[in-house]
Parts: sequence; C-alpha cells; structure tokens
Amino acid sequence: MEGYKYHVMLDITSKLMFCWNVNYSNKTVSIRVTCQLPPNYWFGVGFSDYGEVTDADFVVFWNDPVATHHLQDSYTDSHGVLHADHSRDYTLHKARTEDGLSILEYTRPFDTCDERDYLLDNGTTHIVYFVSKGTPASCVGKDVRDLHHGFQRVQLLKPDVHLPPLPADVWTFEITAPKVKIPGSETTYWWFITTLPILHHKHHIVRYEGVIQKENEDIVHHIEVFHCVGRKHVHPYSGPKVPEGKMDPASDLASCRNVIGAWAMGAEPIIYPEEAGSPIGGEGFSPFILLEVHYHNPHLRTGHVDSSGIRFYVSPTLRQYDMGIMELGLEYTDKMAIPPEQSRFLLSGYCIAECTQTAFPRDGINIFASQLHTHLTGKRVWTKHVRNGRELPEVNRDNHYSPHFQEVRVLRHVANILPGDALITECEDSTLSRSNVTYGGFSIREEMCVNYIHYYPKVDLEVCKSSISDNALQNFFYFMNRIEDIPISPDKGIKHNYGLIPWLPEHVSILNYAYQTSPISMQCNQSNGQRFPGTWEGVPLTKIEEPLLPEDRKCGI
Amino acid sequence: MEGYKYHVMLDITSKLMFCWNVNYSNKTVSIRVTCQLPPNYWFGVGFSDYGEVTDADFVVFWNDPVATHHLQDSYTDSHGVLHADHSRDYTLHKARTEDGLSILEYTRPFDTCDERDYLLDNGTTHIVYFVSKGTPASCVGKDVRDLHHGFQRVQLLKPDVHLPPLPADVWTFEITAPKVKIPGSETTYWWFITTLPILHHKHHIVRYEGVIQKENEDIVHHIEVFHCVGRKHVHPYSGPKVPEGKMDPASDLASCRNVIGAWAMGAEPIIYPEEAGSPIGGEGFSPFILLEVHYHNPHLRTGHVDSSGIRFYVSPTLRQYDMGIMELGLEYTDKMAIPPEQSRFLLSGYCIAECTQTAFPRDGINIFASQLHTHLTGKRVWTKHVRNGRELPEVNRDNHYSPHFQEVRVLRHVANILPGDALITECEDSTLSRSNVTYGGFSIREEMCVNYIHYYPKVDLEVCKSSISDNALQNFFYFMNRIEDIPISPDKGIKHNYGLIPWLPEHVSILNYAYQTSPISMQCNQSNGQRFPGTWEGVPLTKIEEPLLPEDRKCGI
Repeated sequence: MEGYKYHVMLDITSKLMFCWNVNYSNKTVSIRVTCQLPPNYWFGVGFSDYGEVTDADFVVFWNDPVATHHLQDSYTDSHGVLHADHSRDYTLHKARTEDGLSILEYTRPFDTCDERDYLLDNGTTHIVYFVSKGTPASCVGKDVRDLHHGFQRVQLLKPDVHLPPLPADVWTFEITAPKVKIPGSETTYWWFITTLPILHHKHHIVRYEGVIQKENEDIVHHIEVFHCVGRKHVHPYSGPKVPEGKMDPASDLASCRNVIGAWAMGAEPIIYPEEAGSPIGGEGFSPFILLEVHYHNPHLRTGHVDSSGIRFYVSPTLRQYDMGIMELGLEYTDKMAIPPEQSRFLLSGYCIAECTQTAFPRDGINIFASQLHTHLTGKRVWTKHVRNGRELPEVNRDNHYSPHFQEVRVLRHVANILPGDALITECEDSTLSRSNVTYGGFSIREEMCVNYIHYYPKVDLEVCKSSISDNALQNFFYFMNRIEDIPISPDKGIKHNYGLIPWLPEHVSILNYAYQTSPISMQCNQSNGQRFPGTWEGVPLTKIEEPLLPEDRKCGI
Repeated sequence: MEGYKYHVMLDITSKLMFCWNVNYSNKTVSIRVTCQLPPNYWFGVGFSDYGEVTDADFVVFWNDPVATHHLQDSYTDSHGVLHADHSRDYTLHKARTEDGLSILEYTRPFDTCDERDYLLDNGTTHIVYFVSKGTPASCVGKDVRDLHHGFQRVQLLKPDVHLPPLPADVWTFEITAPKVKIPGSETTYWWFITTLPILHHKHHIVRYEGVIQKENEDIVHHIEVFHCVGRKHVHPYSGPKVPEGKMDPASDLASCRNVIGAWAMGAEPIIYPEEAGSPIGGEGFSPFILLEVHYHNPHLRTGHVDSSGIRFYVSPTLRQYDMGIMELGLEYTDKMAIPPEQSRFLLSGYCIAECTQTAFPRDGINIFASQLHTHLTGKRVWTKHVRNGRELPEVNRDNHYSPHFQEVRVLRHVANILPGDALITECEDSTLSRSNVTYGGFSIREEMCVNYIHYYPKVDLEVCKSSISDNALQNFFYFMNRIEDIPISPDKGIKHNYGLIPWLPEHVSILNYAYQTSPISMQCNQSNGQRFPGTWEGVPLTKIEEPLLPEDRKCGI
C-alpha cells in the first residue's frame, strides 16, 4: 500500500486489495491491485454502475502455462461475457508476480472518452472483481457470472481538500462497539447505547475517523454515531437494531437521531474547516449516544468479535463558528408517492428562496460536507443551487448512489449559499421490482429523498424540505376521479386513493407533472420544530431559468 | 304531413320526406316516412352518430315482385353492410303504397334499450337514408355505401315548452335574401347587408322563425341575422362571405356579430318567454344588420333563386325584462391548444362563482335558449351547472354536435342560475385528421368552445369565459423543457412552443391534466369589454364535489 493514499479490501479470501491515488490536475487515477493467490489463478478488477458484473469495465490479469503475464483491457456485455476493449486507454506500469504476490499497476483518466470504459465521477463507485482458478490462453468469451465475483463501494474520486492542522490542545476519545460477536447472517445493524465523555464546558469536535478492527475490515460496512438530543437518561442496550414499532417506549431511541459522526467503508477522516467545529458538552447537553454498526457478512462467517467505531478529535478551544447539520429535500409524508414498476422516477424537494432569505445571515452559510440519504429505491441523488433563476454549480451529486453506502462526504468545493438562494434536492428512484406504490415515510419500505448538509455558521434552520401542497394533491385526485374515472374518496385518505390508481403510463406522467409543477408546502423549520414566520403553504416551487451547462468532456468527435 | 308537427326533406330527388311527433310523457317518437318513387325502388331511413351509413340504425322498406310490402328493423356494421336486428323495438302502424306514395309509419321509444338501436337525445340527430332501384328478396347483406345515400341533421327531440300567445299589438317584418342566385357549388355562405325597420322607440322581438322558400327547402341550410352594434353606416354588400383578412376595412363587418335571429334546417320558431323580449330600436340603435345564409348544394344544382330569411315578430309593448345573450366557454386564445391526432380531446371553459356573484341579480338569471358553438373539430358540447360544489341538471348538451348545424335551441327546462353558481362549458374535439396543433382563435381552422346563452333579465355580464392562467401555462412549458427535454424558448411565443412538442401520449395526458387542474384567467367582462372589478388572474377553477348521477335508462339487465 506504500505510495497509495487510499485502499479497500475487495475480497478477503483471495486477499484482493485495491489501492489508489487521485490526481485532479491531470484528472487521472493511479491504481494498484494486488492478489496473494498462486499463479494458476486469474482475476479481473473494474467498475460498473451498481456492482453488477454485466456491462462492466474490467482489467483482466492472468498467467499462461509458461508463466507469461497477460493483461487485457476488457468489458462484459449484458450477459456477463468478457470481450476485448481494443481502445487502450490505460497506462500500464507494472504487471508481474513478486514473492507470490500478483501486482498490477496502471493509471487511467477519469474520462477515457471510450464508451466501453466506466466514467469516473465524485459519487459512489462500485469496484467489481472476479477471481478464478486456471491459466487461460485468453479471457475473451468467459462468462464472469460463472466465476467467483463481488464488489465493494467506495468514493473513488475523494476530494483534494486542504486539511487544516490539528490544534495543539486536541485530545481524542473513541466510541466503539463493545466486543460484539458478529452474527453469522448477511446483514446486521448493531445498536449500542453509550455515553460521551462528560464535558462541563462546550468543546468542538474538529475531526473524526473510523477505527476499524483490522481483521474485520471487509465486514464492517458503515458506522454512525447519533446524539440523543435532550435525553437525561436512556436505557442501556447492546444488540441487533430494534425493528420499528418493537422499540421499548421507555428507551425510546427516536430522539437519538442527530448524527455527530459517520463512517463508511473506504471513508477518509472527516476534518472540519478551520473556522468551524461540531459543538459537544456544556450545560444541558445530553451525554447519551447511539452507536450503529452495519456488519455486511456475505460469507456468513461466525466467530468474529468486533470493537470498531469512531475516533473523535476534540478541543476545548472553540473555533469561530459552530457547524450545523441541516436537512434538505422532501418531507417524510405519504403525499409523496412513487408508482410501481418505474425504472427512474424523479422526486424533487425544495428549500426555497423565501426560507433562506428568512433564516440565513447576510454572508450566507458554507456547506463543506454532505450526506445524501434515501431508502431502498434511491438510484441517483443530487442538490442543485439556484440564485435568481440561475443555476450555480451543484452542491453534491451521486449518480451511482446506494442506500447501503451513505457516507458523509467532504465537498471538493465549499458551497456558499446566500440568503435568497434556493436548493433543490432531487432523487431518481427505481421501483421496477415493486408492484405497489412506495410512499414517503420513515419505514425502510417507505422512501426518503434528503441531503444532510454540514455547514457553518450554524443557523436556527434545521429542516428545509417540501412536499406537494395539499390543494395541488387534491387537484390530482380530482382529475383522476373526474377524467380517469378512478373511484377516489377524499375521506379515505391519501394512501387509499393513490392505491386505487392502476398506474398506466399516462397516470405516471401526470403524477410526475403534478410533482414537478405544483405549488408546494414548505417545512422551513427552526430547531424547536416550529416553522419560521412566513407563508409556506401553496407557494411556487423554484424554477431554473438558466440551467447549468453540461460539463465539456473534451472528447472530440 | 298532416298530424305531424315536424318535418324535414331528406332527399329532393326521391321526395323522401321525414315527419315526426315527440311524446315526452311516454318518451316515444312517432315517425312517418314518405317516398314518391315507383314501387320498384326500395329505401331505408334511420340514425347514426354523425351522418355516416356505417354503424347506423335503419328501418328498411321494399316491395318484392308480387308487390308485398316488406319492412325490416336493421343495422349496418362498420363496413356499411345491412343486418337484421332481431330485437324488434319499433311499433309499426303503416307500411303500404297509396296513390304511388310509399308510406311508412311507426313509433319507437327514445331509448329502446337495444344496443343496435340509436339512443335518441335532445342534441343533434343525424337522420340517414338510402334509396335504390330493385325489389330484393331480402335487404340483408346489401352494402349501403354502394347505394344512393345521405343524411340531414335535425334536433329530433324538440322541447315541449309552453308557447305564450302573441301580444295583440304584434307586427312582423322579414329579413330575407335579395333573390340570390344560388351558386352551383356545394357550400356557399351568402352575406347581405340590410337594415331593420327604423323604430324611434324601443320594441321587443317576441318571436322569430325561418321563412324558407319552398323549392329551396333542401338547400337552405342555416340562416343567421347579426346586428351591427353601434354602426352609423355600413357599406352595402350582397355576395359570398368575405374571407377573413380580405374584408374591406371601410365596411368592417366584425361589429356585425350580435345574433338577433338564427334558424337552421328543421328549426321551429323561437318564441321568447312571456317575461322577456329582445330589444331593438330606440335612440342610438344601429339599424344595420348582416344576413348570412348557408346554402348546402351537394348536387351542385344551378338556376335556383332564393329569398329565404327570418321573420321577426315585434311589439311596442315592452315586456318585463330585456333578454340578453351571454357568451360562456373558452377564451379565443392560443393558450388553448388541441394536440393533433386526438379522437376526443376535452376542453373546459369556466364561468366561476366569483363572477356570477359579482354580476348577477339576487334572483339570478333564467336561461331559456342556448346556441352551442365550435369550429370544425367539435364533436360534443355541453354546459354544466354547479352550486356550492353540487352539480345541478345540465343547461344544455349536444352529444352529436356538428359545427355545420348551430341552432339556437329553446331549452326544455329554463335554468335558473343564481349569483355564486358556476357554469362549466365543455367540448370534446376530434383532431384525428390533423397533423398539427389546433389553437384557440377566430379563424375557422382555429378552434372555439362556447355556448351563447339566451336569458333574462339582461345583465351587464356579456362574456364569462376562461383560459389557463399564464403562470400555469409557463409551468407546462417549463416541465416540457426541463423534464421532457423539448427546446422551449419563452421568448418565441406560445404557438412556437406548442409546435415543438412531439405529442407523444404522455404529452397529451399532461396537457389534459394542466388544462383540467390549473388555475385560470377569467374574462368576467362587462358589455363595454372591461372586466368587472375583482381578481380574475390565477384563480382556481370550479370543482364538482357532488356530480350529477347518470340518468337511469330503466333497461334492466
């Protein structure tokens, strides 16, 4: 791993390790793949949209019987069969076996301009791999689906941000899992109620990072630390995540929802800007926190014990600003519905100019990190920034979003949002595998579309989200009743009425139209849960008169 | 024709005459068909939706070689081939030949409950016929499209209204064509500028009726008399209708648009209710009028001279109320567009509660007659009446509307519209034969959707029409641009932008949705053309919370 800034273990059995550096000045990534298997094994590493090995972009490495190394830039078709990619856009540095370790080193541009190659971006990247025994004469024609294969998610193009030095009086504490015996099931969300150090005066968290137990590196998938706001006491708990509705009311964990630290596989330390820190401690600050660790154990291994967690760096010297977390996007309400069997359904949540005008200081706020969040159907998520009808560079975007990989991501460019600017958070959701309507809501089978932005200076605006106005939704049902002859009953509730619609293509188009053009209801909410004074019901949504031009790929024709 | 109240000449060559009576108490029509052709001819008479002989409901009459009369309840399929209708729902009174006249007399219910029979209603009825030489053994299997055939439009179910007696001091005058030589072309609209009698004091028209020259009964299709409001002088003119844009500006006939009399083939006299009369004469009242006669001459006959027109009954004794004509429906604007290739596209124009509240007297207005009006694509037209969200009986409806047959129709039931009531005028338009968008506008290739209601007492509200609000239309184009990726240019105008849309089914659905749910712009206009004081831009359209139940056909199962 020497010489490489980032790494991720792709496959523990074959010790297939993926290390990389990002060079923003010439827009390339340098990659080193190592594999500890004997030379009569061959493997491939590459990228695909969501981790599938079909329609994937691979580099394949193998030895032939006379021990010559072969390397092939290749791709799989929609059936998973390997083909040679004759446009060679990778620069090979090394492909050999040293001391029983197969080493592959190469550099590729973010954008090779080759349609066969994966276009790297700042969102989630799915690194796919396969490993197989044999010394084939050629890899062409092999079906990767028949071989041992898998994937890992990382943010490959990590930002090249300036890292401020740590203050001299910094000290650290760790919130870690209490020697959890990792269950032998594929997915476990472990919950552990614990406390922060007692701090009589307010401190600032200035940095945090994952502390992952070495031997569990491929199992610990993500970790979040939630602060239980305003709780004087929380019952101790250590065990699998309590399903919704099964939660002991006495140890109500719903208040444990303010994220103070989050790590996901491959994540780097989160280092706050010099001007800002995350406040903890002081009078009335609850010490209770909930640690959530997601173990992803596809080989159903047993016997692993884990004490992974998050290390916080705190300083008693307060920085200029408290940082805050604000929630943008769509309100959690069944007014939002995604019809079944949609490959991509667009949802848009607004933080309108009138709300930022009311809540932001004159110099605005500075967003330095963002955590995109949806439930199971989210496929792409982004937040647009609009000033006086003109679209400015996006705050954040993930074109290969996975709900199983919700990192807090430091932004390459801090976004300064002025009073009167608007933020539009949008999600593309896929419900191809669902036969019923998916509603907005809290449950994992319901859907969300939000962006938790990390910013400074902290303002009292905690939630800036929208939903279609009640009146516009009534119009939609009225139309479905009167023109489409669907027996809508206003008395029977929104879910009942959405559920009556047969979702023919025209019904989906009309719902899309209603969502994208109708007046909205704004949650422009203070931290006490109350709306700011203002008119927030039936207000127009934000229109973009001058959209951002698409980035020039500089590929020529 | 003795014993029959109504009659219409179907075919002049065969002297095929259709006479009828309507009985509302038992909901039947009694029909007498006579034909002067020799007994070796056969014929059929019946009904179809729009005058086609395919999918038509026929009664067929013929003699066989031994001079036996045959009668067959029958129907044609979608190819025009005759089939026997074995459900006999007609009561035959007479089917014989007397003095060389074939006579057919029968009675049928409005609704026979037989799917093969035409359902008679209060709108336009297309009476279809065919005539052919021969004495077939059976009519079954004959293709009507191969025989001499045609149709006439009438309002078959004329209203059974109480006719007030004429006042004692009534006198009449006639506005007639000036011995027009009917051109030998299929369609002629003849225009003739003339004057009303000079009346120094205001009078009331209490009745008017067509005076049709006997020998031109099958050619004179409709007649309208337009008053040239406020004109001190109009240039004399007698000739074919001047095409739009070709009109001599000096004799601008655009001001000649207030209908004071209208007749269409088969129309009965228009008799005003006892309380009301149509005011003419008095100080400042222009005497100029434009007579328009539509000659429909499918056999391209020449040599006919015509002096048909309208006879007005006037009285110097003024009645309690002046009657007025108010225009309901959709504004003439390109904001309204009908996509191409639509079999039925719904348009809705609103006269909202806020406007009637402002303009109507406490006891409301009483609508006693109605003239529905569209241009070439209109197929069905109606006006709904809504009070506090509850739908009351419709003001008027024509389910087989033809733009070539625009009668003023006296209503069976006077509709009392109170202040705060709303009127929704709707049209279903067919653009199957058009490949471009049809816009709202004045030209015959553009479209209208209006109902001229005749009512009393006259109020200052002359126009109560709507269009989609500018803002909602902008939303539609914004969506088409942003989501459907159509290169809309706000600067290039509405027609340009509508014209860019490829009108896939989802685009049509979305336009339909936008029209049926978006806020509207109201023309709540006084007779001086100014809007009444009030908020008329971006107001909600009228919603029906409690729709009218469909009429019980009493057909059993």
